[in-house]
Parts: sequence; C-alpha cells; structure tokens
Amino acid sequence: MARKLKVAVSGLGRMGARHAVNYLEKTPRAELVAVCDPDPKAIAWAKSALEPAGVKIYSDFDEMLAHPGIEAVIVSGITTEHAPQSIRAIEAGKHVLCEKPLSTDLEISQGVLDVAKKYPHLKVMTGFSRRFDQSYRNAWKKADSGDIGRPVVFRSQTCDKYRDDDYFIGYSKVSGSIFVDASVHDIDLALWFFGQDSVVKSVSAVGTCARYQGLKQYGDVDNGVGIVEFWGGKIAYFYACRMMAVGQHDMTEVIGTHGKLTVNANPVHDLVEHHEATGIRKEIGQTYWDRFEPAFIRESNEFTEAVLDDKPLPFKLTGAVQALRIGSYLQEALRTGEKLHFDETGERVTRPAARL
Amino acid sequence: MARKLKVAVSGLGRMGARHAVNYLEKTPRAELVAVCDPDPKAIAWAKSALEPAGVKIYSDFDEMLAHPGIEAVIVSGITTEHAPQSIRAIEAGKHVLCEKPLSTDLEISQGVLDVAKKYPHLKVMTGFSRRFDQSYRNAWKKADSGDIGRPVVFRSQTCDKYRDDDYFIGYSKVSGSIFVDASVHDIDLALWFFGQDSVVKSVSAVGTCARYQGLKQYGDVDNGVGIVEFWGGKIAYFYACRMMAVGQHDMTEVIGTHGKLTVNANPVHDLVEHHEATGIRKEIGQTYWDRFEPAFIRESNEFTEAVLDDKPLPFKLTGAVQALRIGSYLQEALRTGEKLHFDETGERVTRPAARL
Amino acid sequence: MARKLKVAVSGLGRMGARHAVNYLEKTPRAELVAVCDPDPKAIAWAKSALEPAGVKIYSDFDEMLAHPGIEAVIVSGITTEHAPQSIRAIEAGKHVLCEKPLSTDLEISQGVLDVAKKYPHLKVMTGFSRRFDQSYRNAWKKADSGDIGRPVVFRSQTCDKYRDDDYFIGYSKVSGSIFVDASVHDIDLALWFFGQDSVVKSVSAVGTCARYQGLKQYGDVDNGVGIVEFWGGKIAYFYACRMMAVGQHDMTEVIGTHGKLTVNANPVHDLVEHHEATGIRKEIGQTYWDRFEPAFIRESNEFTEAVLDDKPLPFKLTGAVQALRIGSYLQEALRTGEKLHFDETGERVTRPAARL
Amino acid sequence: MARKLKVAVSGLGRMGARHAVNYLEKTPRAELVAVCDPDPKAIAWAKSALEPAGVKIYSDFDEMLAHPGIEAVIVSGITTEHAPQSIRAIEAGKHVLCEKPLSTDLEISQGVLDVAKKYPHLKVMTGFSRRFDQSYRNAWKKADSGDIGRPVVFRSQTCDKYRDDDYFIGYSKVSGSIFVDASVHDIDLALWFFGQDSVVKSVSAVGTCARYQGLKQYGDVDNGVGIVEFWGGKIAYFYACRMMAVGQHDMTEVIGTHGKLTVNANPVHDLVEHHEATGIRKEIGQTYWDRFEPAFIRESNEFTEAVLDDKPLPFKLTGAVQALRIGSYLQEALRTGEKLHFDETGERVTRPAARL
Repeated sequence: MARKLKVAVSGLGRMGARHAVNYLEKTPRAELVAVCDPDPKAIAWAKSALEPAGVKIYSDFDEMLAHPGIEAVIVSGITTEHAPQSIRAIEAGKHVLCEKPLSTDLEISQGVLDVAKKYPHLKVMTGFSRRFDQSYRNAWKKADSGDIGRPVVFRSQTCDKYRDDDYFIGYSKVSGSIFVDASVHDIDLALWFFGQDSVVKSVSAVGTCARYQGLKQYGDVDNGVGIVEFWGGKIAYFYACRMMAVGQHDMTEVIGTHGKLTVNANPVHDLVEHHEATGIRKEIGQTYWDRFEPAFIRESNEFTEAVLDDKPLPFKLTGAVQALRIGSYLQEALRTGEKLHFDETGERVTRPAARL
Repeated sequence: MARKLKVAVSGLGRMGARHAVNYLEKTPRAELVAVCDPDPKAIAWAKSALEPAGVKIYSDFDEMLAHPGIEAVIVSGITTEHAPQSIRAIEAGKHVLCEKPLSTDLEISQGVLDVAKKYPHLKVMTGFSRRFDQSYRNAWKKADSGDIGRPVVFRSQTCDKYRDDDYFIGYSKVSGSIFVDASVHDIDLALWFFGQDSVVKSVSAVGTCARYQGLKQYGDVDNGVGIVEFWGGKIAYFYACRMMAVGQHDMTEVIGTHGKLTVNANPVHDLVEHHEATGIRKEIGQTYWDRFEPAFIRESNEFTEAVLDDKPLPFKLTGAVQALRIGSYLQEALRTGEKLHFDETGERVTRPAARL
Repeated sequence: MARKLKVAVSGLGRMGARHAVNYLEKTPRAELVAVCDPDPKAIAWAKSALEPAGVKIYSDFDEMLAHPGIEAVIVSGITTEHAPQSIRAIEAGKHVLCEKPLSTDLEISQGVLDVAKKYPHLKVMTGFSRRFDQSYRNAWKKADSGDIGRPVVFRSQTCDKYRDDDYFIGYSKVSGSIFVDASVHDIDLALWFFGQDSVVKSVSAVGTCARYQGLKQYGDVDNGVGIVEFWGGKIAYFYACRMMAVGQHDMTEVIGTHGKLTVNANPVHDLVEHHEATGIRKEIGQTYWDRFEPAFIRESNEFTEAVLDDKPLPFKLTGAVQALRIGSYLQEALRTGEKLHFDETGERVTRPAARL
Repeated sequence: MARKLKVAVSGLGRMGARHAVNYLEKTPRAELVAVCDPDPKAIAWAKSALEPAGVKIYSDFDEMLAHPGIEAVIVSGITTEHAPQSIRAIEAGKHVLCEKPLSTDLEISQGVLDVAKKYPHLKVMTGFSRRFDQSYRNAWKKADSGDIGRPVVFRSQTCDKYRDDDYFIGYSKVSGSIFVDASVHDIDLALWFFGQDSVVKSVSAVGTCARYQGLKQYGDVDNGVGIVEFWGGKIAYFYACRMMAVGQHDMTEVIGTHGKLTVNANPVHDLVEHHEATGIRKEIGQTYWDRFEPAFIRESNEFTEAVLDDKPLPFKLTGAVQALRIGSYLQEALRTGEKLHFDETGERVTRPAARL
C-alpha cells in the first residue's frame, strides 16, 4: 500500500470542518488521524462526521499534537491562535498548513516566519486559496509566457454578498479590517503576477460604511478602495466590499503592455441561463466556498504531495507576510487619510519619493 | 469505521480507467477492490496505478466476479460486452453500473432490462452522465418548479471536437452511429424534461459526412440533425457533430410556454478571458471529460449511496432502453431518408398519424 | 445641390410609417415626396408627421403613382397588395422596394419576377432586412473569406416575443403561416450562406400550438421546427416561435468544416448589466424593430444609392421567390405530416432520392 | 414646411467633420448652412463633401459667424480655440455646442461659463457624449428609480486602443494629460450618478508610462489610476489607459447599497461570435466612434430640439467645469505624488479632513 500522510486538523469552525472533510475524503494520499477544537458543538459534529471514519477527537491542541504519528497539522482555528499553534507544531517537527492570516499583527506573523526558517526541512504554508484556483493558474501561465507583454496595471476585488445580520461586524473585531482580511488575497495575487520582490512606492486608500455602521467602531469599512504603487512602473488597485447584492464576486484583471487577462469578470455558478420576461438571467455563487471549493481541495492535495514527495510548495511563506504588510499599509492609509510613501528599498519616507 | 461498498471495475479503457480512479480516490464511501481487463497494456497501467492501493487485478471478468466480497460491478469495457457482463453480474447478485449503451442492439438492451427486473433488490443503472451534471439538475429543478411553464420545444446537441485522425471512423464501427452513440444523451435529457412516458409521434433525420468520408461505410455521418415529435405537442430536435473546431460543445435549451432555460449555451472552461488584438477570447473544454468530470464523480458517489442506503437511483433502466430506441429510430430515418410515424400508443404506422 | 431620389411610400401601417420616416429623415440622398394609404387613421398620422415636411398624401395608390417626378416606390401595405402594386409601379417605370413577402402565393410572386425581368433597368427588391444587418454581413464576410471552411450546417431561428392578445392569430390569416412569414428570413439567410443555387433535397417539419390555439384554424402553429436538406451535403434547420418570454430572439449559427459563426446567440439590447439579488440580468430587445432598425435604415440608403448610382442591388429578386418556395414546402410538410423529397434538379419525387 | 435650425460648424478635423455630416444628414430638424476651418485640406474635404449640399465654406471663424441666419454654432476646432470661439459665438447671440474641454485651463473654462450666464436665453453645452449614450441613460434611469439603492462606489475607465505611432504623444501636448482629457468623461459620469452637487473630499492618483515614454515630457502617462472621494460616503475610482490591445474599452460600474449596474463590462461590436480552434472570440470596437457614434447623433438631435423648442439641455455647463476641475486635481495628484484634501465646502486643506 502506498503510504499516506498522517494529518491533524486544529479548529473545526466553518473552514476547519471543511479542511477536515477534504483531508478525510478528497485527499487520497492523506489520512486524517486527529482533530481538535475546544468547542463542544464542534466536538459533537466531529463525533458524528469524523469519528466513524476512525478520526481521533481532542479538545486540546497540544494533546492532539502529541497524537502518535502525526506528520502535518492544519491550523484553522481562531486567528489569534494561528501563530502560536503554527509555531508549536513546527517546533514539534510537523509540517504546517496555516489558514490565513498568520496573524493580523505583522510582528507576530514575522515570528512564525522566523521559526519556520529554523526548520527548513518542514513545509510551512499559509492558505492563499486563490493560488490553487485553476483559472488564476491558467491566467498566470499565460502572463508568464508573455501573452500580455509586461504586466503594468493590476486590478482585483474581493466582494462578499451582503448578509442581513451582524456577522461582518463581529468578524471585523478579530479579522483586522477589510484590507487585511479581504484584500490580502488580491494583494497576494498582485505580488504573484508582478513578482514577489516588487517594492511598494506609495499606498493610498479610502472607504465608507454604507450598510454596516457598526464597523466604524473597529476602524473598518464595508467598501474600501486602495491603490498600491510599486517601484518600476507597476500599479495595483483594489476594491473590497461586504454588501454585494448578487453574490460573491471576486475578480481580477491584469493589464499588460500587449494584452489583458481577466479572471471571473463574468462569474459563473453553473451553466444555466434563464430567459424570462425581465431578461436573461444567470445566477452566481453566493459564497467564497461556491467560488473556491475546488481550489481548497487542490490545496489539500498539493500540500500533501509536497510533503510526501519533498517537492517545493507553490509559494513561499515570506510572501504571506509581505501581503499582510501591504494590507496593513492600506489599513493605515484608510484610517489616517494620508498617502504613504516609500523609497526604493521599501523604507517609509515622509514625502513622495519622486515627482513626474 | 463506516462500512464501504466493495466495488469492481470491468474494462480499463479510457472511461474504465477513470471509473477505477474515481472509485479509488473520489468516492469516500466506496472501496475499489478489483478490476479486470484482458489487455496487457491496461493491466500494466493497473499494476502501477491501482495495485499499490491494494486493488486486485484480473484479466478475466468471471474470475474477478468471483473475487470475495464484491458487491457492485462497474461495466465499462467494449460495448459488445456491456450486456453479457451486466447480466452475469446481476445474476451473481451484484449491483451494476453499466456504461452506456447497454447495447447498440435494442433487443439485447431489453434483455438486460428483463434480467434486472428479476432482481428488484439490486441497483442496476446505465451511465447517463448528464443526469448527474449540476447544471442540468439545476435547470431541471427550475423547469420542474414551473419556472418556464410547460416545456414545449427541446433542442439539444452533442458536438465533439474534430480530431485529426481516424478515431471517429473506427469508433463508428462499434458505437452504432452518431444518433445512437452521441444523441442518445440528448434524447435521454428530452425524456427527462418532457417526462419518461412521452410517446413518439414522428421521427425524421438527415445527415452528411463533411470531414470523415470513412463513416459512410458504416452508414454513419459526422453531422446529423433530427426531429423527434412526441404526442401531446412536444417537439425535440437534435444536432450531433464530430467536427467542432473549438472543442466539445454539448448544449441544451428547453423552451416552455412561459420561459426558456439553456444549459451550456455559453461554454465555460475556466474563468479566464483573454483580451488581445484580435478580440476577446475564451477557451472552452476540449473533451466530454473536461465538461462532465464532476458529473462522473457525482455518479460514482450517488450510485454508491443508493446501494449502501438502499435509496432509489435517480433514473430508471427502462429510460435508457427507451432513449436507445429513439436513437435507433433516428438512425433508421437517416439511413432510409424516410420519416417514421407512430400512433398514440407508440406503435409504428405507415402514414402521418394526424394532419393539421 | 446633389440630386435626391424622389420616393413614394405606399401603405402607412407599422412598417410603412417607419419606411416613410426613414426616407424622410434618415436617407440623405432620398426625398420623400408622396405617400398613400386608404385608412383615415394612417392619413391623419401622415398629416401631422409628414405633410409639414412637404410630403403629399394620397388615399389611392394609382393617384400617388401619377404624382409627378416619382422615381421609386416603397410597397409596404397589406400583403395581398404587394404584388399588384409592385407590378403597376414597375410598369409605370418606377424602381420598387417591396416589403416581404411579394405574396404568400408562389405563382403570384413569380408573376412579379416575370414582370420585373421585362424592365431590367429598374431596381426591384424585396425587403429581406437581415441582408442589411451589419452582424450578418460581418459573419458572411468571414464565411466568404474561408474562416470556417465550407459551410455544412445552418441553424437559424426567428422567435417573437409572446403577446397577450390575439395579434398573431389575426396576422396568421393573411401572413401565410409561421414558416412562410417568419422562417422565410432564415431560409433566405441559408441561401445566402450556402449559395443561391442550392437545390433542395428534402424537407420535413413539425409544429404545435402551445399558447395560441386559434392558429389551428389557419393550419398554423406557434412553434415550428423544420429541416431543409440541400443536395451537396448541406443541411439547414429552422425554429420559429411566437411565444418567447424574454423578447425577440432571432439567431443564426453557421457550422463549417473548420469553424462556426454565430449571429445573436447572446442578444444585446444595450450595454447595461444588472447585478441584483437573483443574479446578473440583461434585458434584450422586445421586437424585430429593436433588433433590426439600423438594418432598415441601411436598406433605405442602399436601395437609394443603387438607383441613383445604378449599382447592383445586394441580392436578387429570384432569391426571394426561392425562399418563399422553400417556406411553402415547410408549410406543406407541416400540414401533411409528410417528408418531401426532390431530385438533383429540384423536381419533386415521391421517394427519398438516395439512401445511405 | 417645419422650420429647421440653421447650424454652423467651426473646425473640420476628425470630430468636426463628423459633426458637420451629422448636422447635414442625420439631424432632420437642423440645416447645416456654413462651416469654417483655416486648414486647406479641411476646406478641400468640405468642398467635395458639403458644398454640393449647399453648405457655405469659410476659412475664418468670424466671417462664418457673420453668415446670415446662423442660429447655432458647433465649436469643434483645436482646444485652444474652444473658449474664445464659444465666447464670440455667444456674444453674437448664437446657441453653442462646444466640444469638450472648454479649455484645459480652469479659469478660461470658467470664463465661458461667466459669459454664458449673461445670455440665459441661449443654449450653451459641452459635448459630453456619454450623456447621450442609450446604455448610460438606461443605467441612470434604473439607478434613479432606486433599483440599486443609494450609489456608493463608482468605477469607470476610459481605455483607448494602442496605436503604433506617436499620436498620443503629440496629442498630450495640447489635451492636458490623461485625467483631463480621458477621465474627464468618467468624472462627469460620476457627478451624474452621484449628483452634480457632490463635494470632493480627497483626491489621489498614480500613473506610469508603459509604452509611450514620450509622454513624460508633458507630465503625462499612458496608464493612470485615481481615486476621488466625495463627502457623504461616496467613492469614485478611475482608470485611464492608452495601450489597450483589444480596442476601445470604456466601461463603468455603479455599486449601490442594494445592487450594481455595469455599462459595457462586456463590450459589443457586433453580434457575431467566432468559434475557432483557439476558442470563442468576439471582436470589439476599435475607437470611441465605434462605441459612441449613435450618442453623437443623439447629441446633435437633442441640442437642435432644445434650441427649437426651448427645452432644457440634458445637463448644465457648470458640470463640465466641475468635471474639469476634478480632472485637474487628479493631474496635480499624479504630478506631485501628493494626496489632496478638501473640507466640506470643497476648499483645499492641507491635512485629511477626517480620520476614521
């Protein structure tokens, strides 16, 4: 029998439960052996959904970590535990896939990076799911092969469907604001298409609370627009939104000197079109899961493969910290109303680094 | 541990190999225990791809059938073996999922049906993959809920990408012509949307060999258009083609008294659009697998679930025979150039059953 | 001053009034000098809309024909007058643009053709508006330049929006059934793309009354599907419908040996898309005028130019009669339920001309 | 005979010649009586294209202005003459339609406004063609009727097709940079959808020269991105580009609290789609004329109607000056690298007016 990677999942919330099921059922080369969550509801779910398949359930992370044979840990609990658990898992010699963000705090995120560097034989990755999306990969391959010349302008948006409750408000408290939580995906994509070594030149942002006034107390907004200028004539601009009527609409366009690529400009939920008296109507996906489920499954499988076959991960942990840093800049620019400037080494300066 | 259905796959050609992998890796409640194929190449593939996972390999169908514990057999070898193997499997007390068609011969197909009726506790199904496609299901739900009123006209096409070889010619020899092989899917969909009890009133068809002259020797064509009129004011019309330049483009539209639904009118391969000097370009899937892979996976899982939980299958075996019968009518109409007529019981008559 | 063509319009119904306005306001090289209509309502409209611009109004066609200086007549009244008025105008030495159909009767249509042949210096044309549509022309140019190889299969539909009144029933009485009235446009397009000299090999058709039972009294249907097979391996199939919920959806696809062209597969009314809670919605045009208004304006201008500059018309009158003939075949096939067969000279035969 | 508005056109360059033809041929209630241009080439064109229709040709603006009977003047020559000619025409008692911009200089633009105010009975308008585009109007009506709730975020882009010459560089010298020349249309639209009385709160912009290095000498760029924040929680962001590969792609989206409208997200040139081996391809328009020709014709007709029937113009001259002012802010923000701030009365301030 081919050997399977022994995996444990920490945190069985919305995403954690999905990770657990993915490793249990949709990652042929992995074996889910243990999970943990302090919440009795999560444990009850695990008892019915996972235990019959032989998965051991813990309420304590460290006890789970000590479960014999575990090789890799998926860290998917509350954000404040992402970094500490990742660090403990790494130090215990486990490979780690940590949900994004490592932390909403830059220094803490950097801390994970520092620890990971000490264990170069371990695979440590954050879950930037769009990197595993087939459409983004196809677009990247085209861009990389020169189809659109040199990428110059990058536009990307993360737009959530409006929810008629206060979920986004409560979420804002822990998620670190719209640019850090949502746009961080778009920023990561910008770095992917522009090059991970792109150096920020200036950052500006504006925002407003159109439907969720409760976000103000956390310095957050439900609509934010930001521009990140990079040295070398590269411009990224972002839109993040929590109130789309139609559904989840995350999209990207990459404008190069000789062509343009778009990803999800025209969202597709299924292949049905409805011709009715008011027009032709297409439904679109309602959640990020509708959009990115196959990417999460690919993530599980590629992480597993990278560990088992000692292959390189598709992107580096440093990139995740860099994306978070730029997200924090946008957040600062939003909150202060100021435009931020940087020199060619990326150091903060007080005045525009260059004028036309 | 939850019990898993023990499955065997007969035939490891293009589709059989995919079935085997699906049962091995993508059907959590099933366990692939054995496969068989007389072809040494197929066996070599199985040795590297399946044996390491503990799958037992046979070159003989009956030996495989005798493998201890097998509960269900996937019959996926050459078309002429579909019926005999299905019958032996049923008579051996196995549940059967048989690739379409049961046979290109109506009587032989009916024979499988007759045997299956004697074993009502066994699940016997043919692989009409489109029945498991999420878009068709969504469209059907909308139609069933009355969104488009009463379905009146049904248009459906199966269009394969052109291949620069003689595959389709060789394939025609065994597949029973374009209407029986390709349009049978569209016919099955028409019966699904119009009702399985729809009675054929007339059938006409034309066709031509535009790119594969070699098809003529088998009475086959590479482009065929047919109309199937049903009693009760329902019209289905079909197009089948073996020479699409762009890729696989299977699409359907259902026109009701109060609206219309289309499935795959605008094919989607991924979410990338390419803006280049010659226009905006989208690539589409090249093969039926590109289009229907998720449907095949759903098929494996639902078949498994139906057996394990003794649930009804999503459609009946009789429908498969009926679809094949209509496909044969189209083929006859094509070959003779005559329009076929039927009375309200579906019996063949020599003259139009009614005039306006 | 550049000389302008002196034009008269006969018949000020829906289309006639539009023609009059087009010649008055949107055909710079033409001058509308006279109109006629026996209906007092039409005359009242003309008094307010046309008379102030100096247009002379008549209630009698022949009096209008005698109006000094008239060079061209647009025949746009009731269908039964199309042929007689056209003939009188031709015999009076006028150029004629006659709305389609010349007549619902083939012999009468042929009569116009016969008269026109005697006056070869006169421009006589029927109003096949789609021939003037920019999209059809662009598609034709691409096809003509070999972009799709040899055209093999032609699919075209004329689908009117459902009307909640008995308009289509009353209209059926005089328009000569759905294939002659609506599909005739699609047939004309098929002849354009396949070649005007294409010879019919077989014709079959079915139809049903789904929403307008009153059509039955005229041997007409509100949904009709027909196949016209041409000698030389060319197949056209047609759909005509009077009950589309969404609007007017006339579309065409031309499948060649090396590619496919579609015209209006995705109808566009304006460039607005509405993202709302139920999906992404586009409105489409509601009438043939919404779809073809620019084509009618181009028709006026090109007809005028052809006369003034003695240029050839874009298509021949014989084609209109041929399209009507094929429409009549479809109608016969619909009404008798029989498939019609023809030999390689286009002569009617009783049995299929060839078998596979 | 209904009376026609006597119109003169000054400037017969690319747009001026089109205006002249529109008034000559496509504006039924107007009569083109005179044109002027100092360029012999333009005069030669007018002699062949306009003189035969009775249009008087001048080389001098003031001589043309003195032509008897002229009621309205279309000012369409070089930008530096827009304001002086408009003022002289107004002072001579003529209605004026002046191409945008009134001037690239704000004070000069304001000067036209000041003069126009003294002649309230005259219609004075600038040519913001998108205001006459049917799609923008339909979108505006939907927004105005509350279909998307309150507009919150406005995104709009003006993207020209790349030209393999130095046209854009020479043009930049006189047009006043990309934000003033191109984005001014998007800004005007933002004011239309957000309300003309919207007060700017902050402005930031970045840009780069990706393909036309020669633009740098004029402080201009070929790709510019800017954000204009308005008081009251309204955000507009803009993209302008001179190097699109595919064609002219001007598009807009308006995100409201309860829905979103897009205009030209999916550009349409004609209704043809090409299915070929590399995918499904649609061509798009190559120039602003391809996109907006019908809007220019509607502009001519509505301007004429407004004068003849003394109806209000569809938008006010003050708006044009306001749009230009915001364009100048973007240009300043681009050139200095600074973010600009404004208080609630629109007065410039040195620090962000508010922090979250």
